[in-house]
Amino acid sequence: MDLTERTIESETVYQGVVVKIKVDKVSIPGGGRSVREVVEHPGGVAILPLDEDDNVVTVTQYRYAFGKELLEIPAGKMEPGENPLECARRELREETGILADEWVSLGSIYASPGFCDEELHLFLARGLKQVQAQPDEDEFLIIKRLPLDSLVEMVMADEVRDAKTAAAVLKAERLLNR
Amino acid sequence: MDLTERTIESETVYQGVVVKIKVDKVSIPGGGRSVREVVEHPGGVAILPLDEDDNVVTVTQYRYAFGKELLEIPAGKMEPGENPLECARRELREETGILADEWVSLGSIYASPGFCDEELHLFLARGLKQVQAQPDEDEFLIIKRLPLDSLVEMVMADEVRDAKTAAAVLKAERLLNR
Repeated sequence: MDLTERTIESETVYQGVVVKIKVDKVSIPGGGRSVREVVEHPGGVAILPLDEDDNVVTVTQYRYAFGKELLEIPAGKMEPGENPLECARRELREETGILADEWVSLGSIYASPGFCDEELHLFLARGLKQVQAQPDEDEFLIIKRLPLDSLVEMVMADEVRDAKTAAAVLKAERLLNR
Repeated sequence: MDLTERTIESETVYQGVVVKIKVDKVSIPGGGRSVREVVEHPGGVAILPLDEDDNVVTVTQYRYAFGKELLEIPAGKMEPGENPLECARRELREETGILADEWVSLGSIYASPGFCDEELHLFLARGLKQVQAQPDEDEFLIIKRLPLDSLVEMVMADEVRDAKTAAAVLKAERLLNR
């Protein structure tokens, strides 16, 4: 069965700083029509930096959308022309002041495929070297090192809810312990 | 350090069918100001239905935002007044025609906390009974049963990228095998 939906008409209804919204008329299987509301996002990366003592470098920041601080792994949006690994190196350095020798892909996640095209590329970074952090002007971060095992338990106990962090922590743990 | 950002002004710039966009002026730590673009979403649920042979009931559907079919676990948006478990029972029945006796919370994920308030409640459902499916008019789904072990491998091999599916599969596997 061909489930393809084809664009009949596309209208950009909002162009923001981070996101763009389009509302498209589409043809659906069986000959009918429907409307799809799509949030367009540049995509990004998230990095699980693991030090020699099996600690993960985490960032805690205020997430305005949820009105609270969240513990996450370092992450950020892709800039025009950047590839995922370049973006990951830049974001890790900016947010934590860390350089890494070894980069391993942990695959990608689609954060919310029902309405948004955001893809997040996940990386495991090892061989860490500390230099100076350079956070954005309006970015306030608390850096904490936590054992990978503890983070796995926090994900399982519903204490870490950020999707990219949960996925990267559980993938890394599985990759390293198989 | 208090990282709280306080709303100074809030403007709704787009009101869609699924999402609403607001652009808020906020105060940031240190006394400065910034702008936060927030996508508001009703939130939802995702269900990992596991049968007696350790197969997971999956749904494959065309995801217009990515222009391709994705294999996911059954999921859906919360309706007004619904709690997560009610929503999960409804969505599982609508999409797959399955009723479940046993419901276990797998916690929540925040799909994209940097710009969106979407929370997805994850459940493991067991004790499955097949009745009649009732998909939405514009919803076309292919239902497949796949061993949980195979799904874990597909997540690790970057063949399943949907964030809620990756999180639920890895959490369930860990919960059941510890």
